Amino acid sequence: MKGSAVVLLSGGLDSATCLAIARDEGFDVHAISFDYGQRHRIELDCARELAHAYRVADHVICCIDLRTFGGSALTADVDVPKDRPVDEMSAGIPITYVPARNTIFLSFALALAEVRGAVDIFIGVNALDYSGYPDCRPEYIRAYEAMANLATRAGVEDSSRLTIHTPLIDLTKAEIIRRGQRLGVDYGLTSSCYDPLPSGAPCGHCDSCALRTKGFSEAGVLDPRTARW
Amino acid sequence: MKGSAVVLLSGGLDSATCLAIARDEGFDVHAISFDYGQRHRIELDCARELAHAYRVADHVICCIDLRTFGGSALTADVDVPKDRPVDEMSAGIPITYVPARNTIFLSFALALAEVRGAVDIFIGVNALDYSGYPDCRPEYIRAYEAMANLATRAGVEDSSRLTIHTPLIDLTKAEIIRRGQRLGVDYGLTSSCYDPLPSGAPCGHCDSCALRTKGFSEAGVLDPRTARW
Repeated sequence: MKGSAVVLLSGGLDSATCLAIARDEGFDVHAISFDYGQRHRIELDCARELAHAYRVADHVICCIDLRTFGGSALTADVDVPKDRPVDEMSAGIPITYVPARNTIFLSFALALAEVRGAVDIFIGVNALDYSGYPDCRPEYIRAYEAMANLATRAGVEDSSRLTIHTPLIDLTKAEIIRRGQRLGVDYGLTSSCYDPLPSGAPCGHCDSCALRTKGFSEAGVLDPRTARW
Repeated sequence: MKGSAVVLLSGGLDSATCLAIARDEGFDVHAISFDYGQRHRIELDCARELAHAYRVADHVICCIDLRTFGGSALTADVDVPKDRPVDEMSAGIPITYVPARNTIFLSFALALAEVRGAVDIFIGVNALDYSGYPDCRPEYIRAYEAMANLATRAGVEDSSRLTIHTPLIDLTKAEIIRRGQRLGVDYGLTSSCYDPLPSGAPCGHCDSCALRTKGFSEAGVLDPRTARW
């Protein structure tokens, strides 16, 4: 074992791949997920199944109510955009952006890392498909890491110990899927849809469904999630 | 009015002074407090009274359960240290340090700032009395500000707009109290104790009570909170 790492696990395709990568690299994983008032709970169920499948050391689910702030289609009573062409998604910051979400999520991951004695944090951000999200950019992650290294007990002793790993940051969705396939990720356990049907089936029309469909198509792989329904 | 600012309001002496400073500087204040599983709720009541007294634009109380992580005398079933000489408190990181607390609190403040269109955040950290806390140091705050400027919509447009104000960072407790007195802060509305009695009265023995007592003594001012009981 390489030691402990904290993995942010949303239950989506990217974080599942991230979890597989951390395990493949030999880390003992502490998974962290958030019940943040999102419109659906299916991704939390997926996170639980993934955590179990990957035999994580522990899986912490933090309840934080981001609905207090509103400001996003994912946490407020605002319609999720549907049927947008993938090419148009990168123009501007989408309404599905949740204010400061990654900053908040990473801060809880940092607390968990400190308590568990971990100095490695994995987050499945991606700068290509989510180019409109400020908190998915490499320069943001580097700045977060610099801050995190000053924020904790570990940082007082050595301000370069903590690493934020972003193994997917410059991969296309198809490349992420191929990487996950090589590691044996069961994408049937993941949910990407922003607005799933009550049955848990993906809507097939939101930005996230469109990106996922395009990714599997380009990777030349059948999406086991879609095949479920 | 100078525009909107977010003020982190714990209900303690420092954050009350910070609130008074932000108002004195002409900001329209959005206050934010946290119900984070702390051992007592008295400071939240104080925060509410202060927010009302200072006529803030709004007061958001975020529920986040830091007990999930444990690791601190303030959030776990660990005794709060009592009757330590003030001189000895700065040796090492105290058990009352909550892992990544300021990082988490500032992240919520950042989300609120983004949603309310504010680019100024006030936090009453102090590098002198809390020299053992990694997340009260000036270098940490500067790193947080750099990160925050890359984290949000505002940061995409201009990565130097957001300011983290720390007006108390290099003041002694006595200097903070004198500053607050000049601004008319009613310290009777504040609570500093880590382990108050059921009546709300300060225990008089924890590190925070000791620092407060010393501060009022050095400032030559009677503490209206103690005088209440």
